[in-house]
Amino acid sequence: MTNIFMLTFSNLIIVVMSSKTLKARYLIETSFDLEQAASILAGEQSSGTFLKIPGETDELKQRSAAEVLSVKSIGTVPAPSLPGARHQPGEPIRQALLEVCWPFQNVGANLPNLCATVAGNLFELNPFSGIKLLDLDVPVEFRDNYPGPRFGIDGTRSLTGVYDRPIIGTIIKPSVGLTPEQTAERVKTLIEAGLDFIKDDELMGDSPHSPFHRRVDLVMDVINNHAQKTGVKPMFAFNISGDVDDMLARHDYLLQKGGTCIMINLNWVGISGATKAACHSQLPVHGHRNGWGIYDRSPVLGMSFSAYQKIWRLAGVDHIHTNGIRNKFCESDESVIASIKACLEPFLGGYPVMPVLSSGQWAGQALDTYRQIQSTDLMYLCGGGIVAHPAGIAAGVKSVQQAWEAAIKGIALSEYAAQHTELKEALSFYG
Amino acid sequence: MTNIFMLTFSNLIIVVMSSKTLKARYLIETSFDLEQAASILAGEQSSGTFLKIPGETDELKQRSAAEVLSVKSIGTVPAPSLPGARHQPGEPIRQALLEVCWPFQNVGANLPNLCATVAGNLFELNPFSGIKLLDLDVPVEFRDNYPGPRFGIDGTRSLTGVYDRPIIGTIIKPSVGLTPEQTAERVKTLIEAGLDFIKDDELMGDSPHSPFHRRVDLVMDVINNHAQKTGVKPMFAFNISGDVDDMLARHDYLLQKGGTCIMINLNWVGISGATKAACHSQLPVHGHRNGWGIYDRSPVLGMSFSAYQKIWRLAGVDHIHTNGIRNKFCESDESVIASIKACLEPFLGGYPVMPVLSSGQWAGQALDTYRQIQSTDLMYLCGGGIVAHPAGIAAGVKSVQQAWEAAIKGIALSEYAAQHTELKEALSFYG
Repeated sequence: MTNIFMLTFSNLIIVVMSSKTLKARYLIETSFDLEQAASILAGEQSSGTFLKIPGETDELKQRSAAEVLSVKSIGTVPAPSLPGARHQPGEPIRQALLEVCWPFQNVGANLPNLCATVAGNLFELNPFSGIKLLDLDVPVEFRDNYPGPRFGIDGTRSLTGVYDRPIIGTIIKPSVGLTPEQTAERVKTLIEAGLDFIKDDELMGDSPHSPFHRRVDLVMDVINNHAQKTGVKPMFAFNISGDVDDMLARHDYLLQKGGTCIMINLNWVGISGATKAACHSQLPVHGHRNGWGIYDRSPVLGMSFSAYQKIWRLAGVDHIHTNGIRNKFCESDESVIASIKACLEPFLGGYPVMPVLSSGQWAGQALDTYRQIQSTDLMYLCGGGIVAHPAGIAAGVKSVQQAWEAAIKGIALSEYAAQHTELKEALSFYG
Repeated sequence: MTNIFMLTFSNLIIVVMSSKTLKARYLIETSFDLEQAASILAGEQSSGTFLKIPGETDELKQRSAAEVLSVKSIGTVPAPSLPGARHQPGEPIRQALLEVCWPFQNVGANLPNLCATVAGNLFELNPFSGIKLLDLDVPVEFRDNYPGPRFGIDGTRSLTGVYDRPIIGTIIKPSVGLTPEQTAERVKTLIEAGLDFIKDDELMGDSPHSPFHRRVDLVMDVINNHAQKTGVKPMFAFNISGDVDDMLARHDYLLQKGGTCIMINLNWVGISGATKAACHSQLPVHGHRNGWGIYDRSPVLGMSFSAYQKIWRLAGVDHIHTNGIRNKFCESDESVIASIKACLEPFLGGYPVMPVLSSGQWAGQALDTYRQIQSTDLMYLCGGGIVAHPAGIAAGVKSVQQAWEAAIKGIALSEYAAQHTELKEALSFYG
């Protein structure tokens, strides 16, 4: 421990002196000597290659080499977690936490090249039978190029008129197959039932069976009429994902029709496209992370949500999906809570982003969610958890509102349900 | 077998009748009944959700539901490969090949939404302890929206003037740290040594220590002078990766300076940004796949190269990295060869893309590579494998050219080396 601290300390001095302020933390697994493995990674991702070559001077390395700040064993595993690693015979396979830093000068304030640096070829390096990017710190220089979310939590609250509790929403289901007319009918039902927020499913974009413009026309008619009558304008996130020019045109059309939110399939539109759309947008960007399992499903490969959400906040995403506890997917509650907390943590002093909880959510998870995050700055999306409520959709919405009231007051759901019929029905139906 | 064939056959009739021509093949791992697991996946990725809800009519499902074409067990595993799966007690954990198809109507010709459909939330579904997209077929409708590579193999050969053998190239090393002046000096040395192609390292973009415009100015001066003197214009792939408008501006600047290739970090620029750059480009797009390990390093998670390269060919990429055999990374030769072959296979009747072999390559892999792919339509990039040649860089280039001559003629390298000094030196130094 002392050695590591001293190493860290001595490198931190260099960090300050040479503004090596781009940092990444990894989980690694290797049978190599840990310091050697760490230095292979740092070399591959900066000025090294597999043979010493002309031009790799000491002065250049001093200026450009990534530095290993610390590497700390956290245990051993009986067998390599991933195939393809070179094994050091007779050596144990260790897992370790590794911290590396780079000179900002290597990269500049460029998100795709930042990722190529901290998450590029390193996943294929053969000393490693496991490698995962756990977290990321970027220098303040990124703030100039990437203004980040324009709306975030406050802007979203202001557009929806919902304060002091989560924004309660749902997803249009069935995910695909509804015509624009059927979608608009469902929206009417859902907003009359009191929902604050509705979104397209990530599968629904601009398809022959539900063309974007037609869907916007009909859905926005319903929403604008409702707003005129009631003074309340629920937010609908339309999935604009696609080619860059198409996305901008869809945004412009939606804006002109009075829409208040665009949705993007982050992993498939990609960083440059999403950044372009977010910079162009006069509406909040709802970031959907479908495909996320590729990054995080393996405990020893890919990228943790902590790093991931920072990239998308820089790109300008206002809302980002985190999953909810007791979800229908494979993610543990612990991981979900860590993701929500990561979103609520300021980044570079700002970049406020609203976590979006969904998947198998209903009234039942409100109290346990609130207990752990102590915040209502979130979107709480329920599909079947609202629309399948035995007393109807309006009762479904009420049951979720009541559950969050109970959560904020610190009252057990079963106790609060004694005075609140819709919650009581929900507990009995879904519980 | 007969049952599966009949199932496939009967569904194929439906396919033809309802133009369900969007198909994906997966490796799955589950302790669920295979048909049940398959149908959960198909439901999640089309019109189903976790509870039966209003509007999910039989007619809508008939129109929009994804269909399981076949599911075939290929064996069992002793323990779940990935955490988080729901286990069916007492049931074996099977691996299986699954084929699913979707109505084109669900998606439209939209690449990001195609990916959300075939590679979206499904990776997180909890019946599965393993799920990997193996391959993908898209209907001809995609051809209208995605013209694909503008240059491909023929265009790249025509721009470089290299025919009947691989395009032999290298990467500027050290990867980062050289000033534009130093880079230009290295380019001069490399092209005078006879290299056909040079690329920026994926770590080198538009950074404070090597600004893009300055690097282009100096490098293109060297290349343009060389071309004027010799009539030969080697191709340099400049890494334009970044925000969309910056990428287009970098392309335009490069074009005006006589450049002949742009490079993009595919995974980090993303599909929409890369498509935009490719559509705009008057130069071939060199697609770098750094970060690829996230997709493919696990045998039971992510996406195989076969599916991946189709997505990028649609996006308009002209060259795509495949790794080379006996590489310094963790990929097996079998996987590398399959990747190269996948690139050389026509897709939707065209979309010609040039595979880029690199990583630890030198003369030594030429014969075995050629034996297995029977083609020279590739880029063969050597870093240390050329520049560290004991007799110098020109000898390094010659050694690789000689190795490919031997490969095409079907002569053993050691035999050919008897008459070819540079190859002989390479075999003795690297072998």
